[in-house]
Amino acid sequence: MELLHLSEKETKEALVNGKITICVVGLGRIGLPTACMFAAAGARVIGVDINEEIVHEVNSGKCRFQDEPGMEELLRKAIAQKKFNASCDTSSCVAISDVIILCVPTPVNESKVPYFQPILESCVHIGKSLKKGTLIVVESTVSPGTVENKIVPLIEKTSGMKATEDFGVASCPERASPGETLNHLKSVPRIVGGIDSDSTKVAAAIYSSALGVKIIKVADPKTANAVKLTENIFRDVNIALMNEFAILYEKLGIDVIEVINTCSTKWNFVPHYPGPGVGGPCLPANAYYIIDEGLKVGYIPLLIRMAREINDRMPDHVVTLVTEALNCAGKVVSKSRITLLGVSYKAGVHDLQMTPLQRVFQALKIMGASVAIYDPMFKGEEVFGATVARNLNEALSMSDCIIIGTADKEFKNMNLNKVAQICNKPTALVDTCNIITPEDAKKHGFFYQGVGRRIVRHS
Amino acid sequence: MELLHLSEKETKEALVNGKITICVVGLGRIGLPTACMFAAAGARVIGVDINEEIVHEVNSGKCRFQDEPGMEELLRKAIAQKKFNASCDTSSCVAISDVIILCVPTPVNESKVPYFQPILESCVHIGKSLKKGTLIVVESTVSPGTVENKIVPLIEKTSGMKATEDFGVASCPERASPGETLNHLKSVPRIVGGIDSDSTKVAAAIYSSALGVKIIKVADPKTANAVKLTENIFRDVNIALMNEFAILYEKLGIDVIEVINTCSTKWNFVPHYPGPGVGGPCLPANAYYIIDEGLKVGYIPLLIRMAREINDRMPDHVVTLVTEALNCAGKVVSKSRITLLGVSYKAGVHDLQMTPLQRVFQALKIMGASVAIYDPMFKGEEVFGATVARNLNEALSMSDCIIIGTADKEFKNMNLNKVAQICNKPTALVDTCNIITPEDAKKHGFFYQGVGRRIVRHS
Repeated sequence: MELLHLSEKETKEALVNGKITICVVGLGRIGLPTACMFAAAGARVIGVDINEEIVHEVNSGKCRFQDEPGMEELLRKAIAQKKFNASCDTSSCVAISDVIILCVPTPVNESKVPYFQPILESCVHIGKSLKKGTLIVVESTVSPGTVENKIVPLIEKTSGMKATEDFGVASCPERASPGETLNHLKSVPRIVGGIDSDSTKVAAAIYSSALGVKIIKVADPKTANAVKLTENIFRDVNIALMNEFAILYEKLGIDVIEVINTCSTKWNFVPHYPGPGVGGPCLPANAYYIIDEGLKVGYIPLLIRMAREINDRMPDHVVTLVTEALNCAGKVVSKSRITLLGVSYKAGVHDLQMTPLQRVFQALKIMGASVAIYDPMFKGEEVFGATVARNLNEALSMSDCIIIGTADKEFKNMNLNKVAQICNKPTALVDTCNIITPEDAKKHGFFYQGVGRRIVRHS
Repeated sequence: MELLHLSEKETKEALVNGKITICVVGLGRIGLPTACMFAAAGARVIGVDINEEIVHEVNSGKCRFQDEPGMEELLRKAIAQKKFNASCDTSSCVAISDVIILCVPTPVNESKVPYFQPILESCVHIGKSLKKGTLIVVESTVSPGTVENKIVPLIEKTSGMKATEDFGVASCPERASPGETLNHLKSVPRIVGGIDSDSTKVAAAIYSSALGVKIIKVADPKTANAVKLTENIFRDVNIALMNEFAILYEKLGIDVIEVINTCSTKWNFVPHYPGPGVGGPCLPANAYYIIDEGLKVGYIPLLIRMAREINDRMPDHVVTLVTEALNCAGKVVSKSRITLLGVSYKAGVHDLQMTPLQRVFQALKIMGASVAIYDPMFKGEEVFGATVARNLNEALSMSDCIIIGTADKEFKNMNLNKVAQICNKPTALVDTCNIITPEDAKKHGFFYQGVGRRIVRHS
């Protein structure tokens, strides 16, 4: 089958009729659901991962993303119907595939430099066993130009074939939010930018067919990647703006939450909220891909750089609030038992990637505090070198200071009366994510501080 | 009538029944329509301005804001019904008023320091003839804390009376957009924050009654002012972010407009667009009020500062694009006739306040260009020391370079075929506000550059 020469309609029919074999490289939070969705649509799908444990799990129908609703069911169905299986052997899988979808992580290293080695290594493997007429789709978020200037030349070199003539390449960046991945895969429009019109056409057809979402075709892979980065950086910058307002308004005695909620009554304002910092695999990394490109062409995007810096410093601000709240309660950090409620980078997901709460935890440990952790997603697990409490009561027992780190439902529903009784009075309470009002905290006798909240004077 | 002791319902009835006299100080783009709206609702309104010409105009039913639909009609009606008249004599008007509404401009000076002298001088006049029981409402945008720390003490000092006991004060910042003022006055919710609950209550009642809009009561005047600044700075920062992306993407060969429009298909992205800079009475000034407060408390909001800087430098970027476009056409700035289409800070309004296009004009003049101006809002007027052309053809005649400075309808509807014939070929075209596509410009033979647009190579 000359896949790249099929029309959109023919491509869709071939996919639905099981005539297309798809190899998904990287079986993480995006790769696994994507593979399962393509299998459910009718394609023959092989998942590849370098981690043997993951491959074994997948083949036995076990899903490690229990925080993704519907995911395990979808996986089991695909396995049972023999539409999907996993393997560690990239080369042999690539050799029999019509489409290769790259879902390899693209993080930044400790110095915040984009670390694209894993995806480039995958490309070397792919190039070595690539068959003629294959379409390679890059879902991983990369800097604009990475596909054109790095991935394509690398595959041409290792395969000895010529892009556009012998194989196609398109970018189709994932746009899903962890914890809602399946829902977003099925509802959020996808951006497709190929190196030529055939690549764009076929990539558009298979995504449209398998996911049932709207497809927006853009000029080229770098534009598709610029879209992905721009929308994420928009969020990062707006959160940073609200973090900046939060700290300033604390000093001016203004409640930033009241301000943001009131601003939202204007037709052209869109609310973002301050917090303990920004975590996850995307937002804290994506800005650096753009900064890196800026460095190369002599134009560092200073606003984006500054926003990143502001968000990265929020954990320090949380520590300051903890110190202040404990001070009001007449206690010092070094002699306090502190309870951190929530460690994930986002409520409701089991994910510690670049979570700002790790910095809060570490800073308080260094200052000599005893820090207990509780997070319903991590009960009894080892996190930051400590064991997560089995329940809220255990974590709060004799606590001198509670830190609300994530807006988890369980924390939102806490009975503050009971909490106050379990803790060691006088108790400090620091809310980083706006789930307890200063008034409510005061009413229950807590010495309260909140990110961006007007300080409550205790008489 | 003890206005401040009336209930909300009683206040509304008193207003509708003509029992409340309102003095609006400052008859500009906000003060005049506000005065007319209160008159239309039934109040007895006196408008005060230090400019005798304005007072004379208003009393003769002439409106200088011809760009505000419905404004002149509303003014004439209020004058004809003897519900409204204007005066230069603040003291005698204040002496007979129950409510005083301050709509005095609050600009920044050349060094971008907030210049609140005019509003503070008004307060001195008000204090000297204030009667007991009066409510003073501040509509002017001021820094958070200005009402509490400057306006209230000043009025107390000059009146010898005590705030909350003898008079009330509330902030109710205007939230209207020039060119749409009346529409926004009647539709956008208003934020009211008083120095005590009586001030908030009465201010809320009169605005709710006169404008028919939703009222949001906030903690105090500084919170109300923080809301106004936060929503405007949100816009300023997001435009700056897109300006930063625009310049970077030009260098990376990516079309920022394609990127922004595509990002808009994501549920949590809100489009803002790059341009020639940010003008008007609000956005270029408001950030400095917050920066000024930040300086006082030792926390300069660096992100907000950086955004302002980026927007302020956009005119320089436009000049760079002009130079590049002319260079492609084989021409130099110093020997070129350049036509600037649009000078207002916003399409469709007759307003040059802090317009970024003045900087573009001046920079090109300094470089030796001959610069013609056309803007349908300023036909035949003197602008930047030059006379605005009477029509498009006159402005474009023998032009070497067209700059689109505003997204005016007339420019959007231009017949590029005809335009190309009038100009001096080869002709450069620089679009700062995304109304002509690079492809369309190229098709008509222009050497095109656009803010954030992929450069079109001319073969």
